[in-house]
Amino acid sequence: MDQVTELSYALDTFYFLVCGALVMWMAAGFTMLEAGLVRAKNTAEILTKNVGLYAIACIMYMLVGYNLMYPGEALIDGVLGQFSVLGRADNTAVDVIASGGDTYYSTLSDFFFQVVFVATAMSIVSGAVAERMKLWSFFTFAIILTGFIYPVQGYWKWGGGFLDAAGFQDFAGSGVVHMCGAAAALAGVIVLGARKGKYSKDGSIKAIPGCNLPLATLGMLILWLGWFGFNGGSQLAVSNVENANAVALIFVNTNMAAAGGLVAALLLARVWFGKADLTMALNGALAGLVAITAEPLTPSPLEATMIGVVGGLLVVPAIVFMDRMFRIDDPVGAISVHGIVGIWGLLAVPLTNVEATLGAQLLGLGTIFVWVFVTSLIVWFAIKVIIGIRVPEEEEYEGIDIGECGLEAYPEFAKVGE
Amino acid sequence: MDQVTELSYALDTFYFLVCGALVMWMAAGFTMLEAGLVRAKNTAEILTKNVGLYAIACIMYMLVGYNLMYPGEALIDGVLGQFSVLGRADNTAVDVIASGGDTYYSTLSDFFFQVVFVATAMSIVSGAVAERMKLWSFFTFAIILTGFIYPVQGYWKWGGGFLDAAGFQDFAGSGVVHMCGAAAALAGVIVLGARKGKYSKDGSIKAIPGCNLPLATLGMLILWLGWFGFNGGSQLAVSNVENANAVALIFVNTNMAAAGGLVAALLLARVWFGKADLTMALNGALAGLVAITAEPLTPSPLEATMIGVVGGLLVVPAIVFMDRMFRIDDPVGAISVHGIVGIWGLLAVPLTNVEATLGAQLLGLGTIFVWVFVTSLIVWFAIKVIIGIRVPEEEEYEGIDIGECGLEAYPEFAKVGE
Amino acid sequence: MDQVTELSYALDTFYFLVCGALVMWMAAGFTMLEAGLVRAKNTAEILTKNVGLYAIACIMYMLVGYNLMYPGEALIDGVLGQFSVLGRADNTAVDVIASGGDTYYSTLSDFFFQVVFVATAMSIVSGAVAERMKLWSFFTFAIILTGFIYPVQGYWKWGGGFLDAAGFQDFAGSGVVHMCGAAAALAGVIVLGARKGKYSKDGSIKAIPGCNLPLATLGMLILWLGWFGFNGGSQLAVSNVENANAVALIFVNTNMAAAGGLVAALLLARVWFGKADLTMALNGALAGLVAITAEPLTPSPLEATMIGVVGGLLVVPAIVFMDRMFRIDDPVGAISVHGIVGIWGLLAVPLTNVEATLGAQLLGLGTIFVWVFVTSLIVWFAIKVIIGIRVPEEEEYEGIDIGECGLEAYPEFAKVGE
Repeated sequence: MDQVTELSYALDTFYFLVCGALVMWMAAGFTMLEAGLVRAKNTAEILTKNVGLYAIACIMYMLVGYNLMYPGEALIDGVLGQFSVLGRADNTAVDVIASGGDTYYSTLSDFFFQVVFVATAMSIVSGAVAERMKLWSFFTFAIILTGFIYPVQGYWKWGGGFLDAAGFQDFAGSGVVHMCGAAAALAGVIVLGARKGKYSKDGSIKAIPGCNLPLATLGMLILWLGWFGFNGGSQLAVSNVENANAVALIFVNTNMAAAGGLVAALLLARVWFGKADLTMALNGALAGLVAITAEPLTPSPLEATMIGVVGGLLVVPAIVFMDRMFRIDDPVGAISVHGIVGIWGLLAVPLTNVEATLGAQLLGLGTIFVWVFVTSLIVWFAIKVIIGIRVPEEEEYEGIDIGECGLEAYPEFAKVGE
Repeated sequence: MDQVTELSYALDTFYFLVCGALVMWMAAGFTMLEAGLVRAKNTAEILTKNVGLYAIACIMYMLVGYNLMYPGEALIDGVLGQFSVLGRADNTAVDVIASGGDTYYSTLSDFFFQVVFVATAMSIVSGAVAERMKLWSFFTFAIILTGFIYPVQGYWKWGGGFLDAAGFQDFAGSGVVHMCGAAAALAGVIVLGARKGKYSKDGSIKAIPGCNLPLATLGMLILWLGWFGFNGGSQLAVSNVENANAVALIFVNTNMAAAGGLVAALLLARVWFGKADLTMALNGALAGLVAITAEPLTPSPLEATMIGVVGGLLVVPAIVFMDRMFRIDDPVGAISVHGIVGIWGLLAVPLTNVEATLGAQLLGLGTIFVWVFVTSLIVWFAIKVIIGIRVPEEEEYEGIDIGECGLEAYPEFAKVGE
Repeated sequence: MDQVTELSYALDTFYFLVCGALVMWMAAGFTMLEAGLVRAKNTAEILTKNVGLYAIACIMYMLVGYNLMYPGEALIDGVLGQFSVLGRADNTAVDVIASGGDTYYSTLSDFFFQVVFVATAMSIVSGAVAERMKLWSFFTFAIILTGFIYPVQGYWKWGGGFLDAAGFQDFAGSGVVHMCGAAAALAGVIVLGARKGKYSKDGSIKAIPGCNLPLATLGMLILWLGWFGFNGGSQLAVSNVENANAVALIFVNTNMAAAGGLVAALLLARVWFGKADLTMALNGALAGLVAITAEPLTPSPLEATMIGVVGGLLVVPAIVFMDRMFRIDDPVGAISVHGIVGIWGLLAVPLTNVEATLGAQLLGLGTIFVWVFVTSLIVWFAIKVIIGIRVPEEEEYEGIDIGECGLEAYPEFAKVGE
């Protein structure tokens, strides 16, 4: 039976890697989504920001974050190993067999899966602060969030910390990943302020449409695909009937919640605005995905659809009121999609999961929000004071692509207006 | 050996989910392909249509379609289950082990794989009716096709109905999926009519080029990738030598047929038009993929290449004559690619599969075509009468993005001509 | 235990197919990368070139290349088989069980994995010769490279030839694939010459920016994702603890090298040019990926990051000096990314792999470079003499899309300048 144990370990590891690759692909999703929703003159910079933050997240999480979040795993040994160290930190066949199934996947496959999660959290921030932040200030924040802020609250839940002990349920991270990113983004937007010309002194609000909606749509579809890995991989195992069924249900529920969110947001936009607003449909699908992420395993597919529908119905007014009432300038709606709907996802868990309580969910979301928001606010403020946070006004009007990156995203396509 | 049975079930389920995710990704392929082949002013609407139809297909197929198509599977129970129902419809480990291998994958993984298929069929329709149909009329049709029209003919073949009993062979759906979508599209185009300005009274025909060929190319490549899941997953199992070899052969044949179709269409376009027409190359690859879908398992790789070559040689004149002789205005060539070549795929099965007969193939394609075409014609006509099917002429000239979606896909890129 | 052996075979085969599909996806990555880095007027042609070369590579490698590179595998039999031949060349369950684990995956899954590699090598060429080569001359070269030049040197290393016997180490092909492609590209650029207007007689050099950087960024991210299959699949097996750990480490190292390369190139560009040059960041990530490809298994993740960092630091000056000093006009930097950094990847192997020697690495890279460069030079020159290699000067100024493909990539987006 040793061969069977090894084979089972191999399947779980391979499943983990495939799911991790899908989550890595979400980096492309955020990149395209955000590039499609900003103006042409700020596109190269947001592309640079997205690919840069992914790389920074990987490096910081390897050096610091993973060991902070999962202190039990001895990655340090493997990472800092001498020349010719071949995955010294990973499990030997002897250990795997001796564990009788308790050790059932490669430690490095776990690291791979976790590292793409932290990149996801950071990606959420980049959209909200688009079109006016200094590039290197953003990267500085990325270092702090991915190396320290995210891992600490990740440890509280997934590393076996006090939130886990308190019964807080967050299967794949509506709170730990999505609301975390949204809280950091909100702090950033508050310190940074709105884009020039967005809110006039006379009270009028200017709508600033994205320049390339096919890209934004592609980004949403990439995220939808990647989310199968995000939620599906969070089961952490697939190699017996129970786990295989669980992963299948998670795939179905993830898909249905996105579908429900999309349809709900599209219908609400049709009724409210009189038009089938594409950007609301995209945000509706993402809202469905964020909503189901806290608990994709206990709902039936129909319940998952409804959880997504509520997410889609929430995200449209959230985006509108965030803009009109609170004058929080979030070009891509990231704070609404990942924050407001992330909260809904966390609060919806007790509806289908008998192990969850509203109290524990509130404790978890409150703790995560306060931790991430307060530490982020301090870091953003420190960045503002020390190295500055906004590009010069003139650069903002001309487009930050030239100022920050020295090139244009679409040099041959004439721009009209603006 | 129980652990081995469970492991085998897990591998087959995981394989099914990976293939299903690839087919879901085809939704992005159709979206990009169609967005690239229409004009800029109609791009946001076709994006909305594509993401909307995918969501509608998922919801309708969950509520109605799957149970209609596979009445033996008790999904209803799981879908409509009460709170905290955890995949009640799925197989227990005890059942799986007792079945001795007959029950070898999760029911929900099967649902996931099937639901993305129906979305594919509906995606085919959206390209053909692009640039002049009312958005909500399209969505109304999507509800009917994915909930009722598709599942009924799907049942006849894959659910164990009379076409299956009659020996009709359609491995992954050249007929059930692709020709089905094309027949519904043809009915739609007939009821809808051509785009304004396409066919003049003096007999001249206006070529209307797509606005973004990199997107269209990306769409084709996404479809090529997704098709590995489409055909490869249709083997339904991978967990022993015979099935693993079969899936490998299907991957190779799918790839070779696409390659053959692309090269053939590109060469034919070069000879016929004097230019290496990119859109014909894209349609040639898709034709190869459609052609091999009815039987990707019995041809050798060289035979698969030739089946693709014939598909590629067919699709070029099909597109030309559909436009010039029959004046059927199909902006993306969907009826030719999925319909004409789908028929070729079905008729090619007996060339390599000894279990297929020309008679059964003709019965199957005739039945599917008549069922889908007639029911679709009725539904399209009813939609036309009850809620209207065409946007106002003025809106069509100005672009339906503003009229239907209230936004533009590329607000900053100046448009020339048109 | 026979069932376990079959299951193990199935898992390894499925893993191979998934990795192969990811490598096929790299074709989309190169297509988008190159389409984003050329001018709008030459975009349709580079799209045609990329999809065409992929198809040609598949056909030529099936007909000739695979059998040349792996003479031990009897693919011919399966490929040329008569009607109803079902993968005759593949392994039977009896053989697999009798082999006691030596035969552990489907031959056709191996063919699939190999065929997408040769397409990768050819994709490298297309970017370097962009914007001035005749389309059909390019395709002619593609036939020769994928059918003959690549397989011969592939045989020397991976087919069991003299380079393998000499101890040359090249795990996934920094040399066999990437430097091979770069050497063929260099020969092509030398025979072809620079784009008109690139280098003036007065010594000035004109920068020619790419027209669509979101596409180029998408291309890089697709390549990053696909590379998990490229390197991860090159372990050739996953189904026990040792192999599963190895594949996990390879995924992690591939990801870290790309991250290191991206950050290093971005920082160097910031320091050198004063701007966070996005195209350098993209090339830095690709450089990290190319660098780790020769040996993704023996470095620790930190070492992999450093190997990527060196790749990123090399690629920026390589691109600059290739342009300014050597006046080699490579629009996408392919020769620097895949050639210069490919060499670095090969030379870095002995740093972490005790089985590698600098001598064997130099022998390997010298042999591959000389073979590919000289044969390519001859073929390019023959093409130039016999059918011509450059488009007419007027066509080059007007854009080769109209001349070669008879259509425009972006007919509605006004072009400025050029």
